[in-house]
Amino acid sequence: MLAAAAGDVRIALVGLKDVLDRTLAQAARVRDRIEPVEATQVVGMAESPTGAWRDKQDSSIAVGLRLVKERRADAFVSAGNTGAIAAAAIFTLGVMDGIERPALGALYRTRAKSLAIALDVGANAECRPHFLVQFAQMGSDFMTHVFKVERPRVGLVSNGEEESKGPRLVKEAHQLLKQTDLHFIGNIEGSDIFRGVADVVVMDGFTGNVALKLSEGLVEALFLSLKDALDASLLAKVSKPLWGPPVKGVVRQWATDAGALLLGVNGNVIIGHGRSTAADIKNAIDLAARMAREGWLAAAARRNLQPSAAHLTN
Amino acid sequence: MLAAAAGDVRIALVGLKDVLDRTLAQAARVRDRIEPVEATQVVGMAESPTGAWRDKQDSSIAVGLRLVKERRADAFVSAGNTGAIAAAAIFTLGVMDGIERPALGALYRTRAKSLAIALDVGANAECRPHFLVQFAQMGSDFMTHVFKVERPRVGLVSNGEEESKGPRLVKEAHQLLKQTDLHFIGNIEGSDIFRGVADVVVMDGFTGNVALKLSEGLVEALFLSLKDALDASLLAKVSKPLWGPPVKGVVRQWATDAGALLLGVNGNVIIGHGRSTAADIKNAIDLAARMAREGWLAAAARRNLQPSAAHLTN
Repeated sequence: MLAAAAGDVRIALVGLKDVLDRTLAQAARVRDRIEPVEATQVVGMAESPTGAWRDKQDSSIAVGLRLVKERRADAFVSAGNTGAIAAAAIFTLGVMDGIERPALGALYRTRAKSLAIALDVGANAECRPHFLVQFAQMGSDFMTHVFKVERPRVGLVSNGEEESKGPRLVKEAHQLLKQTDLHFIGNIEGSDIFRGVADVVVMDGFTGNVALKLSEGLVEALFLSLKDALDASLLAKVSKPLWGPPVKGVVRQWATDAGALLLGVNGNVIIGHGRSTAADIKNAIDLAARMAREGWLAAAARRNLQPSAAHLTN
Repeated sequence: MLAAAAGDVRIALVGLKDVLDRTLAQAARVRDRIEPVEATQVVGMAESPTGAWRDKQDSSIAVGLRLVKERRADAFVSAGNTGAIAAAAIFTLGVMDGIERPALGALYRTRAKSLAIALDVGANAECRPHFLVQFAQMGSDFMTHVFKVERPRVGLVSNGEEESKGPRLVKEAHQLLKQTDLHFIGNIEGSDIFRGVADVVVMDGFTGNVALKLSEGLVEALFLSLKDALDASLLAKVSKPLWGPPVKGVVRQWATDAGALLLGVNGNVIIGHGRSTAADIKNAIDLAARMAREGWLAAAARRNLQPSAAHLTN
C-alpha cells in the first residue's frame, strides 16, 4: 500500500483506529497521500456474507464501499472475506444494467506473455447459459477498455474443441455466444488457458474456482519440488548465485497476483487473497487505479445500453 | 514398450502388419517376450467413438480389447483415440456390476510425494450425484488393491470446504458420500489436489477434464518460462552443468505420465496421451502389469457384490 501511495495514487485507508495509527506512523514519506477513514468493525474471514452485511454496517468493508458509492473513492481494494465483499458490493453499489450476476475475474499472464482474464472464478457455483454470455461480455469490455485489447478473443472452456462437447450448460452457452457481436473463438480446453489463445476465458464459477485454486496449488507444488531438488544437489547449491536470480524472477512472476476483480457491480472492486503479500496489494492498487483512470465502467455501461448479448435470456 | 518387455512382462503387440514387422526388427533382444497380433484397421484420433466401433471391428483397438475379453491378455494399453477406446472397452468387456458409468482416472504424484488418483477426468461431462459416489468407490478400490493404501482418503472437489459449498450436484454427492463406508474426508478445494490431502479425488468428468488439461498446460508454461529465464542469463547458462541435472529430474518427474485408467469396465485398460513418449508408454505398461498382478478387478468385483454405496441411486 505504501509503495502504491508512492506513485500517483491517493489512498483512503479504512480500518480500526489502532491499525490506522500504526500504519500512518510508518508512512511519513507518503503521509500526504493517505487519508485515514475509521471503521469500528471487522468482518472475519469465516463470517457469512449476508450476516456480515446485516450486523456490521461499520466494518472496513461497508465503510470502504460507501466511499466508492459516494464517489469519494474511485475503487475499493481489500484482501478480506471474498463472499462478504461481494455481497456488500452488490448491496451498496448495485449491479450494472444488463448484468444479472456479477462475476469474479482473475487476470493472469499467459505463455504468450499476453494478459488474459478468466471469469467466473468463484462468484456463481451454479450458472445458467446466459450468465456465461454476460461473463464473456464483461470480460471483453474489461480487456478492451482497461488493457486496450482490440476485439478481445473470447474462449469458452469445455472438454473438447468441437461445439458438441461439454455439459448442456456449455453447449447452450456456445450457441448463445455465436449469436453475439463478441469475438467468440469457440471452445477452448484446459490446456489452452495458459497458452494465450484467448484474452477472455469463460467458465461457470465452480469450474473457474477449481481451476484458479488448482493453478495456485500446482505452481506452489512445482516450485517446492524444484527447490527440494536444487537443495539436495551440492553442485546446484554452490552455484546458486549464478542461477538464483533468474529463477527468483520466475518464481516472483508466477507467485504475484493482483487478486480477483468483482465485475458487474457499479464500482471498481478488487479482492485480494487472504494471504496477499505487500507486492500483491500494490499490484491490486495499481490495477484499481488503472481501471478507474481508463473509465472502463462508464464504457461498459454505455455498451450495456445497446441491445446486445447481455439481454439474451433463456 | 521395448523397455517394458525387458522386465518380466510379456507383450501382445497389436497393429498393422508393417508396423509389427518394423517394431519386431528393432526388438531382437526381447523378441521372445513379444507376440505380434495383426490388425488390419486403424482408428484415427478424430473419429467418432461409435462410428469407429461400428465400422472397424478389426482395428488394433478392437483386436486388443478382444484379447483381454478372451483372457489371452491381462490388460490393454493404447495411446489412441480416448473416446473410441472407452466405447470399444465398454462394448467388448462390459461394465462392472454395481457401476453405471466407467470413469477415466488420472494417477499423479502429490507434493506429499504420495500417489493419488483423480477421477473422472473426462468420460462423463454430465454427471448425477450417485455417479460421483461410484467414482469414489472405484478410486478407493483401485488405491487399496493396486497401491496398498489402507482406507484411502476420499476428497470431493468443491469451491469451498464446507458441505454447503458447491453446485447442487456436489452438495448432493457430499450427502451420499457421507452415508458410505468409504473414508470420506469431505470437500477439498482445487488448491488441495496437489497437496496430497486425499488419495482419491472425485470430480465430475467436465471439471476433471479441465483440471487435468489445465495442469498439463500449466506445467508446460511454467517450465517454458523457467527455461526462457535461464537461457537469457549468461551466468545461469555457463553454470548449467551444475544445476542442470537436478532440474532435469524435476522436469522429467512432472512431465512423465502413465496415461488415464478406464475404471469400471471388466478389464484393465490404460489410455495414454496421443503425444505419449516412450517413457510414458513404459510407465503405462508397468502400471497395467501391476494392476493385473494385484488382481484389483476381482477384489473390486467382490466389493461390488456387497450392499454398498454403489447401489445407492437418486
